[in-house]
Amino acid sequence: MSLLVTGSIGIDSVETPHGKVENVLGGSSIYFSLSAACFADVRLVGVVGEDFDMDMLAPLRRKRIDIGGVEVRSGSRTFRWQGKYQGAMNDAETVGVELNVLGEDGAKIPEAFADSRHIFLANTHPALQKHFAGVFSSAELIVMDTMNLWIENEADALRDTLRAVHGLVLNEGEARLLTGSHNLVTAGRRILEMGPRFTIIKKGEHGSLLVAEDDLFVLPAYPTEKTIDPTGCGDTFAGGVMGYLAGQGRCDGPTLRRAMARGSVIASFVIESFSVDALAAVTGEQIEERLAELKRISDFA
Amino acid sequence: MSLLVTGSIGIDSVETPHGKVENVLGGSSIYFSLSAACFADVRLVGVVGEDFDMDMLAPLRRKRIDIGGVEVRSGSRTFRWQGKYQGAMNDAETVGVELNVLGEDGAKIPEAFADSRHIFLANTHPALQKHFAGVFSSAELIVMDTMNLWIENEADALRDTLRAVHGLVLNEGEARLLTGSHNLVTAGRRILEMGPRFTIIKKGEHGSLLVAEDDLFVLPAYPTEKTIDPTGCGDTFAGGVMGYLAGQGRCDGPTLRRAMARGSVIASFVIESFSVDALAAVTGEQIEERLAELKRISDFA
Repeated sequence: MSLLVTGSIGIDSVETPHGKVENVLGGSSIYFSLSAACFADVRLVGVVGEDFDMDMLAPLRRKRIDIGGVEVRSGSRTFRWQGKYQGAMNDAETVGVELNVLGEDGAKIPEAFADSRHIFLANTHPALQKHFAGVFSSAELIVMDTMNLWIENEADALRDTLRAVHGLVLNEGEARLLTGSHNLVTAGRRILEMGPRFTIIKKGEHGSLLVAEDDLFVLPAYPTEKTIDPTGCGDTFAGGVMGYLAGQGRCDGPTLRRAMARGSVIASFVIESFSVDALAAVTGEQIEERLAELKRISDFA
Repeated sequence: MSLLVTGSIGIDSVETPHGKVENVLGGSSIYFSLSAACFADVRLVGVVGEDFDMDMLAPLRRKRIDIGGVEVRSGSRTFRWQGKYQGAMNDAETVGVELNVLGEDGAKIPEAFADSRHIFLANTHPALQKHFAGVFSSAELIVMDTMNLWIENEADALRDTLRAVHGLVLNEGEARLLTGSHNLVTAGRRILEMGPRFTIIKKGEHGSLLVAEDDLFVLPAYPTEKTIDPTGCGDTFAGGVMGYLAGQGRCDGPTLRRAMARGSVIASFVIESFSVDALAAVTGEQIEERLAELKRISDFA
């Protein structure tokens, strides 16, 4: 079943203790869709400027991602992000950002995509997310991401949007900020009171937490020792989760758990290279291997 | 089989967002032994001053902990600690500390305890830990804890002591400081190069990590929503781990994993009250219940 993602497409320049790259493919919807495509048919909706070289999307074409929803807007420039990671590389320092086309009107959903059953609204202004949620109001599953900026400055719009989605994926700092609770289980329960049926709280190297109406699940991160560039890790995780859910056509507790395990494993690949190189190259066999390893390292029966 | 612990016995005054207590029972060996006693016979070795009211040890007596190694030193005063937790309560702020008897000669091991097969050396000066390790050089299992102070100021003595023990339990910040690695799996492997056969890295609310010569294991923390006072949490965890290992008389990978699960569960009780109140009251049935719950919330088969 088709999974549609709306989100940013960007041109990134990234520096980490392991090196630097300039003008490489990035953006939340890119990482998300490359990851999700391991499990489902993916439709990408986003906007780039006329400076964007469409050949950069070759890795997406190879994964049969439908890029029919990528609009090249004349007179506009592509979103650009310049970031730096230091030390433990837990947090990106934004060195420079040009919103460009992301500061203009949102992307349009092609008519051919209107029958999408699974929708992921990557991080953007909550009002725009709500608009998209409205377009797909009869979809089986609508999940969104958000960020500190909206939690702090667009609280009302965000609350409004949360009532229109089934799931929220966010990181632990955002969950604490949104709910005022230091305890993540409590934070998760408060998020459910805001509308979603489930929330997945990402904890980086510490894994992730699922709080659902009828489930609670804690998953460790796949313990990789090789981190070259963490950019896109959270979007890759979300892509694995949503891709698996869409591929299975179910969203019950056990399926959500298995989906998170896939997300955790795929995220362990993306951080092993700059940009999408390692993610684009990952095979189903490699995913299965790490999945078995993740099970092995977390079992105490 | 008998498990011996050497460590601090203290009189604590603690303030958290949930209240405050004054002059209550505390100290690493106290939390450790009350926890370990759920699974094994425990022998406690420590020193208090003549100001110490031995009736405070009533909870230990009720758990049949052998307190024959508690020396009441005349002319000395008991170790006292005053701490405060704020916000997420992840870190204790030390408001006041009186080393008192802990700044004097270490405890003596009673002759009746010389046949102890399992030894836990709670955090103290590494030279003293090495002395104890020497006393029990033919023990089946010697595990130690440490802290930033020794890692930073007594590096040589600590390295020396690490070669005399089988296991090291420490928290993630300490593991990073000791090894210079941000990555905890890498940090764990470096610790094994320093001597121990295994290390358990405690990650607080994020659980714990085992790195052993032939095993790697990640365990979530039991997801409690009720944290009243985190004091003693790490010592309680270590007590559960060592108590279970001693009770089983084995220390292979699967047993270590099950031991850590017990440690994680008991630690979820201790934080639900000030001092040792909740820990002293916990029953085997309650432990089994949470153990089943911990399995349930971490399964994704």
